[in-house]
Amino acid sequence: MRRTDSVGERADPKLKPRYDRELPERIARSAATSQGASLRTEEVRAWLDERRQAHRFRVDRIPLARLDGWSFEAETGNLVHRSGRFFTVEGLRVTTDEGPYRQWHQPIINQPEVGILGILGKEFDGVLHFLMQAKMEPGNPNLLQLSPTVQATRSNYTKVHKGTDVKYIEYFTHSSRGRVVADVLQSEHGTWFLHKRNRNMIVETFEEVTLSDDFCWLTLGQIGELLRRDNVVNMDSRSVLACAPFPDDAARALHSDSELRSWFTTERSRRETFAEGVPLSRLPDWTGDRYGIHHKDGRFFSVVAVSVEAGSREVTRWSQPLFEPHGLGVVAFLTRRIDSVPHVLAHARVEGGFLDTVELGPTVQCVPENYAQLPPADRPLFLDLVLGADPARIRYEAVHAEEGGRLLKAESRYLLVDVDEDQVRLDPPSGYQWVTPGQLTSMVRHSHYINVQARTLLACLNAAEARG
Amino acid sequence: MRRTDSVGERADPKLKPRYDRELPERIARSAATSQGASLRTEEVRAWLDERRQAHRFRVDRIPLARLDGWSFEAETGNLVHRSGRFFTVEGLRVTTDEGPYRQWHQPIINQPEVGILGILGKEFDGVLHFLMQAKMEPGNPNLLQLSPTVQATRSNYTKVHKGTDVKYIEYFTHSSRGRVVADVLQSEHGTWFLHKRNRNMIVETFEEVTLSDDFCWLTLGQIGELLRRDNVVNMDSRSVLACAPFPDDAARALHSDSELRSWFTTERSRRETFAEGVPLSRLPDWTGDRYGIHHKDGRFFSVVAVSVEAGSREVTRWSQPLFEPHGLGVVAFLTRRIDSVPHVLAHARVEGGFLDTVELGPTVQCVPENYAQLPPADRPLFLDLVLGADPARIRYEAVHAEEGGRLLKAESRYLLVDVDEDQVRLDPPSGYQWVTPGQLTSMVRHSHYINVQARTLLACLNAAEARG
Repeated sequence: MRRTDSVGERADPKLKPRYDRELPERIARSAATSQGASLRTEEVRAWLDERRQAHRFRVDRIPLARLDGWSFEAETGNLVHRSGRFFTVEGLRVTTDEGPYRQWHQPIINQPEVGILGILGKEFDGVLHFLMQAKMEPGNPNLLQLSPTVQATRSNYTKVHKGTDVKYIEYFTHSSRGRVVADVLQSEHGTWFLHKRNRNMIVETFEEVTLSDDFCWLTLGQIGELLRRDNVVNMDSRSVLACAPFPDDAARALHSDSELRSWFTTERSRRETFAEGVPLSRLPDWTGDRYGIHHKDGRFFSVVAVSVEAGSREVTRWSQPLFEPHGLGVVAFLTRRIDSVPHVLAHARVEGGFLDTVELGPTVQCVPENYAQLPPADRPLFLDLVLGADPARIRYEAVHAEEGGRLLKAESRYLLVDVDEDQVRLDPPSGYQWVTPGQLTSMVRHSHYINVQARTLLACLNAAEARG
Repeated sequence: MRRTDSVGERADPKLKPRYDRELPERIARSAATSQGASLRTEEVRAWLDERRQAHRFRVDRIPLARLDGWSFEAETGNLVHRSGRFFTVEGLRVTTDEGPYRQWHQPIINQPEVGILGILGKEFDGVLHFLMQAKMEPGNPNLLQLSPTVQATRSNYTKVHKGTDVKYIEYFTHSSRGRVVADVLQSEHGTWFLHKRNRNMIVETFEEVTLSDDFCWLTLGQIGELLRRDNVVNMDSRSVLACAPFPDDAARALHSDSELRSWFTTERSRRETFAEGVPLSRLPDWTGDRYGIHHKDGRFFSVVAVSVEAGSREVTRWSQPLFEPHGLGVVAFLTRRIDSVPHVLAHARVEGGFLDTVELGPTVQCVPENYAQLPPADRPLFLDLVLGADPARIRYEAVHAEEGGRLLKAESRYLLVDVDEDQVRLDPPSGYQWVTPGQLTSMVRHSHYINVQARTLLACLNAAEARG
């Protein structure tokens, strides 16, 4: 079984190169292209407003008891849909070995179906453009944001919703319709979802594509510019864009890739975390009222219900539970150049809903109010450094919302904050490590490595990188 | 945040290369070196026999009721140790969407602790050698096999066993003692273990190492030669060796790496598999007698108990449950050259105990007797092709045992069988895909991709490759 390395030299009908060397350059070229072939960046806001006008979008809070098709299961008190699909709200007990909260109970969303978050790509004038959708989701603070071409749960595209067809889904379910640029299962918030993951896909097509009303083609440079504005690019888009194969050509880093994986393995091995399901009706510290289920201290989040009327969704009228976090989150990478190569400080985070205990997250990821009553020693590491940062050291700042299909106005300030050796050493505290954006880009090709908040920041980093 | 690519050219005190370009060559050189600096390959058998003589090794079947420190929990009937550690035997119900068995119940081993399987490497005469241990395990058919330098559950090295120290463990728990060559969490048999994984490590040291009695230094070439013999190299060694960064320099393959990951994501997304714990005492189709818990048809496996007396273990006398599979397994990769590049036919396998539903396994992995009573259409795909293979097409064949610490005489015939286009097309049935050994080698760096049987075959493939 000797490998024939010279075969790479021959013109070979059956085999193909294992790596597409041109693709990262084409991604970088799109990211460096600040105006697209159709809509100009400065026209996007007006276009989104126009789409917002074009549809009837109305979201109202309703009492839990008025949820249509949803009910509390007799034995467990879990909140379930009569179809047995979509998702359920259950209880979870988490036990962990670090931090001020070592054991807690909480409601959690159990959504075992794997959905598709897919962005279609196509070249115009030699530059890759991506088909973005103006999509309303009930939990978005401004209802309508730029979403992936396709954002569909399995129930969506297998018609459990009894809605209309999901537009452009065929590019993501039939491999013959395009060439895969990225395709990886990624986790979502382990603090609100149990083992949830979605398929993050980018597919390039060479076909003519008919443009529907709520869609527009944008370059990565345009999307990168929009990422600098509050609440324009939705979470699913940010997550998928983070999976784009940006160039990864810095040959040196503080740690080799092999050392980095070993550090990650150490973190995953040393943490003792257990999460187990418990009935929603028997969660200590949580109580329900007419409009929601709340923590006794008013912190963390509530489970609430909304009714929705929408003209651009597959179904035009429905009601559903949402998780409503309390307080604005802070999500930040500390960044520094090490011998002129940019690095970010990654945190090996335990979240109760992760399938595999630990993923790499931002340096800081929390809602400060949840820690307000704790002694200073129990405040999240580096939070005060981020909150007190000199504005001149803030390289990036914008407010983004998380998944608007399940979370109500779950907003966080996303930041990239420059620090120096005096503030954070090359040898950071246990659980933290300096990594390059290129190393994150090479890890995000695989599942279970990079959490969803870090993916948002990675998308911003890679976009900023391309602009230079 | 512009990456400074030219930094790779400069001598740079803080940064290091992200990839060690020499390491794969050094691994390949060790694999091509057929005689080592200490023991000659032909002396290994005598040395193993000598070590077998040097210790008192005795394993006896005992009634389940005579297990010391183990008992059946009142409420569930689960078999647990009084320390609450080691492992428990529980019940599992698995529901899946393909194959002749769509739902079944079975006992399963729940061992949440992450153990370390570590092989220490060191250069002698310019060639990497690996420190292998002659280690007795109660389930090995011949009791003593070549094991990793360290093979320790967390209970082992944190002294829950109250035994002696684990030799050489410091190289794997203190990063200053060597350089990491491989370090990744890998799954074990999803048919017998619930979510079990171990840390597979290779560490190279530059220190003088004192050689203890039960240890010897061997090149990868020597271990590769021993892999051709029945029951010499134990499963943990095979699993760790599969994680060695062998050269991965074939530039072309039937599918690009990106396509391959996309196919894998498709397989993982499309399979609907649910596994949930049930009490061991309430498993339909399973019944207990004095000496074990058995399936009503006598198939699959039994849960049995043994007492052990051993002189070379951390503890010299103990008793424990073991799973005893019924029948000899068949584990095979079909192989073919595609335009002169070797490929193997990987199977995206669902196993009830996998943490993430699907991993790549061999083309065939089963105990034929478990399917003997089924109609031909329900027999595992490609099994008959393997069983009926022309001996001239069998490139590799040896009998190996699985994990001897939990499984009693769990032996399988491992094979590599050459096929051609008439037998298996370039476009194989759903769930199967042609991949190169190099592609498997690049995936095995990460968790959740390659199952333990495929890792054994990958170790054999890479060893064979180096011999040419």
